Amino acid sequence: MDPVAFAADLIRCPSVTPAEGGALDLLQERLTSLGFQCRRMPFHAPGTDPVDNLYARLGTGQPNFVFAGHTDVVPVGDNGAWTRDPFAGEVADGVLHGRGASDMKGAIAAFTAAVARFLDSHGAPNGSISLLITGDEEGPAVNGTRKMLEALAADGEVFDACITGEPTNPDELGDMVKIGRRGSLNGYLTAFGTQGHTGYPHLADNAAHRMVDLLKALIDLELDAGSDHFQASTLAISTIDIANPATNVIPAEAKAVFNIRFNDLHSSASLEEKLRAVLDEAAGGTAHYALEIVCSGESFLTPPGDLSEMLTEACLEVVGRRPELSTTGGTSDSRFIKDYCPVVDFGLVGKTMHKVDEQVPVADVEGLSRIYGKVLDRYFGVAD
Amino acid sequence: MDPVAFAADLIRCPSVTPAEGGALDLLQERLTSLGFQCRRMPFHAPGTDPVDNLYARLGTGQPNFVFAGHTDVVPVGDNGAWTRDPFAGEVADGVLHGRGASDMKGAIAAFTAAVARFLDSHGAPNGSISLLITGDEEGPAVNGTRKMLEALAADGEVFDACITGEPTNPDELGDMVKIGRRGSLNGYLTAFGTQGHTGYPHLADNAAHRMVDLLKALIDLELDAGSDHFQASTLAISTIDIANPATNVIPAEAKAVFNIRFNDLHSSASLEEKLRAVLDEAAGGTAHYALEIVCSGESFLTPPGDLSEMLTEACLEVVGRRPELSTTGGTSDSRFIKDYCPVVDFGLVGKTMHKVDEQVPVADVEGLSRIYGKVLDRYFGVAD
Ligand SMILES: [Zn+2]
Ligand SMILES: [Zn+2]
Repeated sequence: MDPVAFAADLIRCPSVTPAEGGALDLLQERLTSLGFQCRRMPFHAPGTDPVDNLYARLGTGQPNFVFAGHTDVVPVGDNGAWTRDPFAGEVADGVLHGRGASDMKGAIAAFTAAVARFLDSHGAPNGSISLLITGDEEGPAVNGTRKMLEALAADGEVFDACITGEPTNPDELGDMVKIGRRGSLNGYLTAFGTQGHTGYPHLADNAAHRMVDLLKALIDLELDAGSDHFQASTLAISTIDIANPATNVIPAEAKAVFNIRFNDLHSSASLEEKLRAVLDEAAGGTAHYALEIVCSGESFLTPPGDLSEMLTEACLEVVGRRPELSTTGGTSDSRFIKDYCPVVDFGLVGKTMHKVDEQVPVADVEGLSRIYGKVLDRYFGVAD
Repeated sequence: MDPVAFAADLIRCPSVTPAEGGALDLLQERLTSLGFQCRRMPFHAPGTDPVDNLYARLGTGQPNFVFAGHTDVVPVGDNGAWTRDPFAGEVADGVLHGRGASDMKGAIAAFTAAVARFLDSHGAPNGSISLLITGDEEGPAVNGTRKMLEALAADGEVFDACITGEPTNPDELGDMVKIGRRGSLNGYLTAFGTQGHTGYPHLADNAAHRMVDLLKALIDLELDAGSDHFQASTLAISTIDIANPATNVIPAEAKAVFNIRFNDLHSSASLEEKLRAVLDEAAGGTAHYALEIVCSGESFLTPPGDLSEMLTEACLEVVGRRPELSTTGGTSDSRFIKDYCPVVDFGLVGKTMHKVDEQVPVADVEGLSRIYGKVLDRYFGVAD
């Protein structure tokens, strides 16, 4: 199987979230012909678009090695700004063009082709190989990987190691493996006071002043100084709003929103406890403020070990580069997978992802497929 | 001249700002018959309503004693909520009813009648008596007292003492003389940063954090601990606004407005200097914020002296009360007059001013007229 031709075929399926666009059907057809048992897992939460997903497993034994990813892509944006049709899957001058080339149909094709070569060379693995593919990664991510994992675990599926094929390399294939991600939470803060006239502040309780004290305590809070594999956690206020048009009126209420990116020294629960303690002290009690925490992803770390070591060796062999083991950047569906098995992210170069003229060198798709193949060889003990 | 009947006549002139409503005409007629030289002083600044005003002077010598006031009134509000027609000037059960009864047609009638009695008893004063009457006190106050004073001073008019007839008594006639007022200014503050992503705060410069630091420095600033005749100056933030809907975006700009009520230890200029020094230090320089100061009135004090002493003695004689010499409450046109001569505010009871069913006891209008008369007697050295 040619990973580049297969990636081009996938690009030709217009699978902008939440549309399936034929991409899961095409992938399922190839996997079925390779011997995978395929299971479509559509989900539909109230107030969201229905989304289709695919879990495919080759073999029934353990260990079960998983490639995770998504067939959905972000919208093309300004269609007229593209040099080529974003859904044509054109290959020219050694470059594969189109929406999803980098993020991440190229990687899906690369690991599918890697499995095909593994089967050609070694036959069935001593265990299982699975693909965990969602159609809802670029959207709300509500009806995708998280629900698949819950349902599969409930059915007794066990996962032993996972590579998520997100684009992780800043410049060259083999630059970077992501072994964890920071967590992210939003805090919705309200300060309460008593309305009054600015001429008589002693008769009022200024919610704006309370808010300044609360926010000052938050921005002065040093969450940590970083950990072995993470930068320091950060807090950033994104907005403060009172919207009081009367300059002589003391406001009764003030609102603010802040975002915290946190490392493996914290969980959203431990942070909430810490934040409430700081705010209680700044407010002189709990009566003068309200805080709501919404966590969009806990931090996680797959400490350097077998999985990252196998990827490192494979990168060295195929492209002669030792990837940095990093925890920087945004989040991925690995934040859900980490509760089930060790997981790292490794895929193509991300330079053009989510942009106009998304593209990836043909050699990178082939190289990535060989790297994935070398990991499979090592994992199943058939490496030369 | 019966001050109550004259007040009722003035109430019947519907002089809601900026309408003259016949009130200045009526007053001018009475003053002319008393021997005053009358001068109408209409002003019309671009973007404002034209307003008429009246300066009337009896005599040409110095000292020139001034009664200041306004014939304009605030709107009636909910007309149906009034027990009586607000422009009927009805007298019933010893009470004068109608818009302007307290603020301040009652006081205008009281000082006009006081002058009439003075002339009956003593003939022409050893100096001059003037009335400085605007039709733009309740409105923007742009085309009123301030412009009259500038024009009159340019013409060589000299003022030696002034009573402004605003309602000053909280409960009973003789409760309170206002010998000064706090100043008021608004500060329009903008904090500047550099937009960015909350995941990468080190690449951005958070304007919300800058604003919190700036505002914290302002609310921690102790302006003063009060002065001999004033409460401590106060600063109150009235609003903070960023209006950033994206919780993962670090804002580039934040805005806030604060109001300062300040006593005689400050001017708007000295405060602006102090504020800029504090903000420069909090911001680490001037590049990261902008401040615009708009002063709606400087503070002023007419220290207890001849004028307040004459009013105190008059109150003790007429109503048996020693008025408190106060600087509390909102501002009046005395904030303009104070640049020309000593000025204090003394008028009727203000309980119903600007409200539905504005009213004042007939006895208070008569009492106020006698108090004003006793002040004239003392000022011109003809007291018993
Ligand atoms: Zn992706
Ligand atoms: Zn008034």
